[in-house]
Formats: sequence, C-alpha cells, structure tokens
Amino acid sequence: MKKLINDPDDVVDEMLEGMVAAHPDRLRRLPDTQVVVRDDGPLDGKVGVVSGGGSGHEPTHAGYIGDGMLDGAAAGDVFSSPTADEFEALIDACDAGEGVLAVIKNYEGDVMNFETAIELAEMEGVDVETVVVDDDVAVEDSLYTSGRRGVCGTILVHKAAGAKAAAGADLDEVRRVAQKVVDNVGTMGMALTSCVTPEKGEPTFDLGEDEIELGIGIHGEPGTERTDVMSADEVTDALTESVLEDLDVDGDEEVLTIVNGMGGTPQMELFVVNRRLQALVDEHGLETWDAWVGDYMTSLDMAGCSITMCVLDDELKELLGAPADTPALTRQ
Amino acid sequence: MKKLINDPDDVVDEMLEGMVAAHPDRLRRLPDTQVVVRDDGPLDGKVGVVSGGGSGHEPTHAGYIGDGMLDGAAAGDVFSSPTADEFEALIDACDAGEGVLAVIKNYEGDVMNFETAIELAEMEGVDVETVVVDDDVAVEDSLYTSGRRGVCGTILVHKAAGAKAAAGADLDEVRRVAQKVVDNVGTMGMALTSCVTPEKGEPTFDLGEDEIELGIGIHGEPGTERTDVMSADEVTDALTESVLEDLDVDGDEEVLTIVNGMGGTPQMELFVVNRRLQALVDEHGLETWDAWVGDYMTSLDMAGCSITMCVLDDELKELLGAPADTPALTRQ
Repeated sequence: MKKLINDPDDVVDEMLEGMVAAHPDRLRRLPDTQVVVRDDGPLDGKVGVVSGGGSGHEPTHAGYIGDGMLDGAAAGDVFSSPTADEFEALIDACDAGEGVLAVIKNYEGDVMNFETAIELAEMEGVDVETVVVDDDVAVEDSLYTSGRRGVCGTILVHKAAGAKAAAGADLDEVRRVAQKVVDNVGTMGMALTSCVTPEKGEPTFDLGEDEIELGIGIHGEPGTERTDVMSADEVTDALTESVLEDLDVDGDEEVLTIVNGMGGTPQMELFVVNRRLQALVDEHGLETWDAWVGDYMTSLDMAGCSITMCVLDDELKELLGAPADTPALTRQ
Repeated sequence: MKKLINDPDDVVDEMLEGMVAAHPDRLRRLPDTQVVVRDDGPLDGKVGVVSGGGSGHEPTHAGYIGDGMLDGAAAGDVFSSPTADEFEALIDACDAGEGVLAVIKNYEGDVMNFETAIELAEMEGVDVETVVVDDDVAVEDSLYTSGRRGVCGTILVHKAAGAKAAAGADLDEVRRVAQKVVDNVGTMGMALTSCVTPEKGEPTFDLGEDEIELGIGIHGEPGTERTDVMSADEVTDALTESVLEDLDVDGDEEVLTIVNGMGGTPQMELFVVNRRLQALVDEHGLETWDAWVGDYMTSLDMAGCSITMCVLDDELKELLGAPADTPALTRQ
C-alpha cells in the first residue's frame, strides 16, 4: 500500500515538524518531545486545556491548538498512547498557575499514562482535573477500552472547554462544561475500507469488495456489524438511529451534528451523508443548530465516516459557537 | 469500488443539497440549477466574483462562496463542465450592477460554456470580465485543454479577486489582481492511486502497486512520468523543482505555498510533504509568507497531492491575507 511518507519510524516526528512549519506563528514543539503547544502560551490567568493520544487521527489533536480550544497536545506514535513523561511535559507547559483540564479519550493507554502524568504534575503543585470522553455508542467495551471509546465527540469537548477557559472561568467550571458535552454527545462510525498503518503497510482488517462495517472504531477495531454494501442513505439511517437511541432525545431539542470523514473519504460523499442526516433530524422533530462536515477525527486513510450528535442547551450553544482560531477549526 | 453515495445519477444534486444544508445561513441554491450563490447576495456596490466547473473537486468551488471570496459557483456533473445556461444563471444572480469577474479553469468545456454564457449575459447588459487560470506546470497541452490546465492555484485567484472586490474595487481592478495571481502561480500534482468516478465505479487509470504518476491532472488525465514508488521527500523534491523552474524565481522572493490533498490522502502525509517543502523553500533562499496544507482542489478519492507556489508582492500579500469567511476557508 502506497503512502506519502519516508521511513515509517519517522512519520510522527516529520508530521509534527511539517505541522509546526505550516503554523510557526501559532504552534511550538517542546524540544525532544512529540508535544505541541500554542506559541504564545501559557496565557496568564487562563486555565489550560490539553489533550492528546495516538497519532493517525489528524487534525486531532494538535490541529485544535489555539484561541478558544486547546493550549497543547501530546502525540503518541501511530495509534499508540503518548508516554506519561510526554503528558507530564504537556501539562507543565500549559499551566499558567490556574490549573489544567486534561481531555482524555477513553483508551486504556491514554487513561493510564495521563493518570500517571497527573500524579507527577500534582506533586509539582499543578492543579489538574480530567474528563474522559466516551461518545462512541457502538460498543460497550472494545479491544482497547473498558467502557465506550472516545471518538469524534471529543472535538466538541475541546471546543466547549476551550471557550469556557478563554472566557476566564476557573478549573471547576471548565471541567463542568466539558463533562456536560460528554453527557450529551454520541457518535457512531462505519468503514468502507480498512486503514493501513505506516508500520504494517497493509490493511489492519479485511473487508470484501461488497462489504462494509458498521460501529467501527478509529484504530481499525472491529465494529458491531459487517454487512453488504449499503447506500449512503441507508448507512446514514443506521448510524443516526443508533446515536439518537443512545441520546434518548424526546423530540424538540436543538442539536449540533457532525459528519466526520475518516481520512480517505471525499467531501462529496460527506455532503451526500449530511443531506440525509439533516432530513432525519427534521423527521425526529429536532432542530439542527449547527452542522459540521469535514475531517475532524480520522483513522489514517480509512474510507468511511462517523456521525456525531450533541444535544444543546443555551450554555453549550454559547460555548460551541464562540470564536476559535486554530489550524483546523476557525469560528468568528 | 465502494462509495458513500446513492444513485450515481443523483450524486451532484444530493451533494449540493447536503452542502447547502450544512450552511443554510451562507449558501442558497438557485431553483432547478446546480448553481450555488451566497445567501445575502448580490451585494450592492460590489463587483461579483464567480467560478465553476465539473464536480468532484470539492470543496472547489462552492466551498469558497462567502465574504472575501466567491459570490457564487456553478457545479457541472462529475468532471463535466456546467452548461452555458447554468453559467449564465450564475452570472445574472451575482451581478449587483457593478459587473462580474468569471474565474475560469482552463478546460475546453468550461472555457466554451462560460464564453457562451458571457455573450448572453452581456446582451442583457451585464459587464463581464474573465480570467483563465492555467497554473499546472506539468504539461503544455492535455486531454481536455489547449494550453496548461487550471488546478489548485485557482483558489488563490478566488481569494485575491474576492478580497479586491470586497474592498470596493471596480471590475478592471478586480480582474487585474486576478491576472496577477495567474501570472505568478504554479502547481504540479502526483497520484498514488487513480480516482474512481461514481458513474464508472472503477479506476480511471491503472497504477501498479509499486507505481506512482507525476504531473497528473485533477480528472485522472495522464501525467508526465510514471515511476516507481518514491519517498515523500523525493516526491516533494520533484514537484517543487518543477514548479520553481516554471516560476523562474531569483531567490529572495516571498511565497505562499500549498500542499493540497487530492481527496484520499490523510493529513498526516500532507504534513510530511510540507516539512520537506519548507526545507526546499529555505534552500532556494525564498521565504514562506504563508503555508496552506489541506484538501483545497481534489480529484474525488484520488490519493496523492499537489504543490502550489505563488510569488508574492505587497499587493498580493494584502489580498491573500485579507479576511475571508467561507465554508472551506476562513481568515480573520
């Protein structure tokens, strides 16, 4: 399988270098680490908001560093957690004395290494709170998790927590709004093709020419159902109904929707999915407050998509609609 | 080949519906057409800037409709020009009495149909000027063109012309800056895989598992060289040297660079390419004023990338750095 890379061992290092080179006025890499922070941080008087995890999900996470979102992010190797040392360096670099919220996707490695880092940081006197994102409604436990996986809904946690921190809220308040997103967001994904990791160079799992997989994770983890190829509308129906069932909406809520590409999916197809998604929102008596379509949380070159819905109240609308200025997401 | 679509005959219609549904406060579709315009247009006192062409290059063109870029865009079927009637409807809808600049990518169908539309619009009293973008340095003539192809550099023409129009310039001035971009921009692309059109459902051309193609177009047109797989750095060297040779820089210019994904390329790989590109810019004594990395002008699900460089002066820096607020490109 062909890729635009050099030595697979260097891919994360070179990617981070290329990302910082694209945004030298925004991003700074901590020397001898895979940690990227905002170039002008830490900001006096502001709670730090940080995240991180395995690479291969770009623009997650470093693409969301900037005004109104993250102060920094640690990148692990492809589909591998950053080390506790890297997470600790991240937390230290993003603390301006007001404490740090760590947004953790629910994977065993990320949770364990972040927790170790937090213990170390707290011994140095840094206040750290955490929120664990587990928005994937497909499976209760999985290959890499106890409990549900954290996937594309994580972006909304970054956005809400980042906006609250930018508004000057204290650490408890920043944590509270992050948890509010976690409590009100659900995601389900599907794959047309497997991803191919740079190291392995071949598909992580086999899908036949006439097969797709529903309920897939973002690391090629098995889904809930392997089925014959379905139309875009049928796929959208299946994903959306699963998310709505989990969110338990009663029918007059406002929602933010995301159609997320998995890395190898053309925008044309994402918009075809969004067309049906918006019709379903309407059929359920819900109202779309904002609809995002694009590559937010990818799985290398996987073809497929996920659908995220977040049920909103006035506070979440204010935070999710607040200004943000990051490489991958800008709101005015 | 699997795609997230319904009936291939409906894909453009459904994509446009999904795009407008994602941006109901920005975009409006003219009834019974594949023409999308800004919802609040035409703007009194402002020159209109329009573009269009075959579908399959998303977010090109409708993704660039909004403040500081396009007033509207016509979408043809996949890789097919819009009709003259659609182009005429576009021009009419985007004229506020100050005239319209049509930005045309150099493909025979687009040029012919836009020219017919312009004759019709001028008979109705609309002033129309045109600029033809031919930034692809790979080939002098091609399958669908006399002269060079128009590819990713077109986005910079939209940006500069849109900013000039937003600043209140007249039609001649808007055309002048658009032509200035055309005169100073070059692009070259490459493919790891062929695109697959919804209609045909199989690769447009065959590339072996160990082959790549340099100098490729955005419709699966043949490139200049089929070669063994190369590293990302070698690919970047080949594309960049071709572009620099064409631009004939003397070594202390400022440039805007674009690493553009062709639709099926993960961001990780684009950043790896950008790393090498920025090193080459530096080696040549040039200075990068801004570096864009992402999917700007795609070819359905093709894996690969293109590299664009635009040589800047103070006027172009002001225009390319001016605010813009569109679905696919935002600058504050």
